[in-house]
Amino acid sequence: MPQEYTPASGDFAEALATDLPEGRLRPVEARYLEERRGRLTGSGGTLALPRSAEEVALILSRAHEARVAVVPYGGGTGLVGGGIGPGDPLILSLEKMDGVRSVYPTENVLVAEAGAILADVQAAAVAEGRLFGLSLASEGSARIGGLLATNAGGLNVLRYGTARAQCLGLEVVTADGRIWHGLTRLWKDNTGYDLRDLFIGSEGTLGIITAAALKLAPRPAASGTALLSVPSPEAALELLGRLRARVGEGVSGFELISRAGWDFLTETGMAGQQPLDPMPDWMVLIELGLSEGQEPAAALEALFAEAAEAGLSDDGVIAQSAAQADALWSLRETIPEANRAIGAIASHDIALPLSAIPEFHRQGLEAMEAIAPLRVNAFGHLGDGNLHWNVFPPKGEDRGAYDGVRAQVTRAVHDLVAALGGSISAEHGIGRFKVDDLERYADPVKLALMRSVKDALDPRGILNPGAVLRAR
Amino acid sequence: MPQEYTPASGDFAEALATDLPEGRLRPVEARYLEERRGRLTGSGGTLALPRSAEEVALILSRAHEARVAVVPYGGGTGLVGGGIGPGDPLILSLEKMDGVRSVYPTENVLVAEAGAILADVQAAAVAEGRLFGLSLASEGSARIGGLLATNAGGLNVLRYGTARAQCLGLEVVTADGRIWHGLTRLWKDNTGYDLRDLFIGSEGTLGIITAAALKLAPRPAASGTALLSVPSPEAALELLGRLRARVGEGVSGFELISRAGWDFLTETGMAGQQPLDPMPDWMVLIELGLSEGQEPAAALEALFAEAAEAGLSDDGVIAQSAAQADALWSLRETIPEANRAIGAIASHDIALPLSAIPEFHRQGLEAMEAIAPLRVNAFGHLGDGNLHWNVFPPKGEDRGAYDGVRAQVTRAVHDLVAALGGSISAEHGIGRFKVDDLERYADPVKLALMRSVKDALDPRGILNPGAVLRAR
Repeated sequence: MPQEYTPASGDFAEALATDLPEGRLRPVEARYLEERRGRLTGSGGTLALPRSAEEVALILSRAHEARVAVVPYGGGTGLVGGGIGPGDPLILSLEKMDGVRSVYPTENVLVAEAGAILADVQAAAVAEGRLFGLSLASEGSARIGGLLATNAGGLNVLRYGTARAQCLGLEVVTADGRIWHGLTRLWKDNTGYDLRDLFIGSEGTLGIITAAALKLAPRPAASGTALLSVPSPEAALELLGRLRARVGEGVSGFELISRAGWDFLTETGMAGQQPLDPMPDWMVLIELGLSEGQEPAAALEALFAEAAEAGLSDDGVIAQSAAQADALWSLRETIPEANRAIGAIASHDIALPLSAIPEFHRQGLEAMEAIAPLRVNAFGHLGDGNLHWNVFPPKGEDRGAYDGVRAQVTRAVHDLVAALGGSISAEHGIGRFKVDDLERYADPVKLALMRSVKDALDPRGILNPGAVLRAR
Repeated sequence: MPQEYTPASGDFAEALATDLPEGRLRPVEARYLEERRGRLTGSGGTLALPRSAEEVALILSRAHEARVAVVPYGGGTGLVGGGIGPGDPLILSLEKMDGVRSVYPTENVLVAEAGAILADVQAAAVAEGRLFGLSLASEGSARIGGLLATNAGGLNVLRYGTARAQCLGLEVVTADGRIWHGLTRLWKDNTGYDLRDLFIGSEGTLGIITAAALKLAPRPAASGTALLSVPSPEAALELLGRLRARVGEGVSGFELISRAGWDFLTETGMAGQQPLDPMPDWMVLIELGLSEGQEPAAALEALFAEAAEAGLSDDGVIAQSAAQADALWSLRETIPEANRAIGAIASHDIALPLSAIPEFHRQGLEAMEAIAPLRVNAFGHLGDGNLHWNVFPPKGEDRGAYDGVRAQVTRAVHDLVAALGGSISAEHGIGRFKVDDLERYADPVKLALMRSVKDALDPRGILNPGAVLRAR
């Protein structure tokens, strides 16, 4: 039987409040308890809003002592229920610690507090002539602490990596309220175990990230955007290989879009101008960021000529202005919104070995067809092997009628992913929604090692219980 | 009082041998017990040469059961005594598991066994038109398992990262003999804790890496090499910023060389042709690897023109042939050899925040002068903030006479590194030589967390005892 947690509200909160400066604890508002797609509702009555690592340490040491569950809350943009916990936990938000502490342009380093909003970090980098490489749809509200805790991905992973790859150092408060001062600005450091990467991606279950030293990159001198038709996902991968041979690391984004994506945009009235006529079954959206002396438009034209000759593309548009580039990106970025409007039966954030993607898609469609005449909208970060492979009811039907097959759909998709050596969570994490799947598909030794690490770093199990690993 | 280990030789080895195929255990030869610079001599009588992960698992399960210490041995090229243990441990070498299992060129992935030699991995990548980005002086004997266990760095970290950044998946045998099948070829995977990066850099103290899935990169279409004078390390950093503005990620190497490096080469008769006249106090060796349509020589000429105008360089040579490029690189790569011939009092593998490097070097020289009229040869991977800052006796004197100040020298250097927010081990690791220093300089919370992780994953302390963390 699981051990009980002490409620955060009541005696515990009252005692804690007397030792914190005023205003650090308050009754929680509904928005901290609502999963953004309404799939989970949290509970709990107390919200903690610390303003320093020391305050976080005090809060955690008390929670540890009393065995109060602590659910860390970032920008509320997570997609796997990681920030929504049951019971009467203390909701811990670092939103008052939202500063960019310093920018070191000659070092290409920026130090931010965990509550800093991604868009603000990006802007602080740009103000110093640099670039912070993390970019995703929710960048206006996602916070650095949550982005690191979930090892967020997004649109430029191909070039700059996930959140993990963009972090040099961390300040972390442990489950029992100690502060690890690991906020180094070092590009190399081989002094002991890699605790940084252990905390990154642990979804608040091993410690609370309070600040981070982040990598910046030089800003590309010139950028270019193109949308090219491709006959198949295989052809798209071949095209990526040829593009990289031309411009090396200059490929910032390489997004796969299917005909279904466009159809959904038109169906929901969200489509802008039609970029290609006819719209092909598959397209890739390419973003280049090149150096001085390189011509992105010329590189894209040469690529298209080569692709056309090789039968890899028969239509395309190369943006001739920033507005055209924005329009092409808007097409890609509006797809998730159209998906929500239509209503997916099930969404899958999967990764595959690159060469297994075409096979996965073929077999996946067959598996769906065997269940019902379902529609699939596959799109995403092809260069990373990461597809958002979302399943919808037939046109005109409501997803409500398909509630009964949701589990079957996801099971079929994830079974296939596992069989092909893929991942059931490429960039969203495990949270609370995928705990069962993790138990089903993960290597048992990995699960046992994870449990050992959890028990070692959070022996009383107070940190985000039920996320990543089952609470016990 | 530390708990005793069971000797590997004798009863334990005899029992183990009967359960392993023939030839897996044999008396150890001297070379497995000798630290390459003679600073440490190991002991032990039994060498294990398994040929599969399953055999490694059997060996470890028995060692765990009996509490036999296991010292993993890679290519014997480590610099911190990580592969040399006291007592009668089982020496575990994966040299018989040295195959490149598969190359996936369209995925830019290569899977190798832990005993594979780096040069062989590089060659396997080249054979498929790809590049494996790890490159270092000992690549002819260093093995993948050891390179990952120590998170090795080397010459191309600026572009491709350390060993950690070039690994996608691992197969690992745990201390108690379970196999974690984590050999994925996925570029994104957010399913649970980052065990991969926990094992990488743990120097064989948390588990035994038996195979790895490694990232490959496209081969640059054209390369260029130049040696430019700079007035100071500050100027070198400024030059790097300007170079990156020109060619972005196209900078593969950016090595700082001091006048002392050249003097040591001439003093030891190892110098080739003098590249600049007069030889300046500071130089940078630049390696570019650019894409199709880019001209490395032109980029380097433009950089030099800009640098000359800005007072950042007043002399330089741009290689006009592969032979000239080799000669410039040979200058850089022969410096460690010249250092060994002259005989350092103390060597330091340090990293600093980039902007602290000039200040460190100034204060470091002052600190050395206060001890004795010592000579300093500072060189290394400037772009990573990683200097090899080695201290030598005055010209004509033998280091033997300075044994008495070695500890004082290293203490002064490391104190300064710590004060400036740096690392006392940038790329070599902790091994056995730097355990005291780690205890002195590391954040105490970090040390405590490391100990918790060690106890969780290796509860009987059999894996490489005394490396990274003190044996107990």
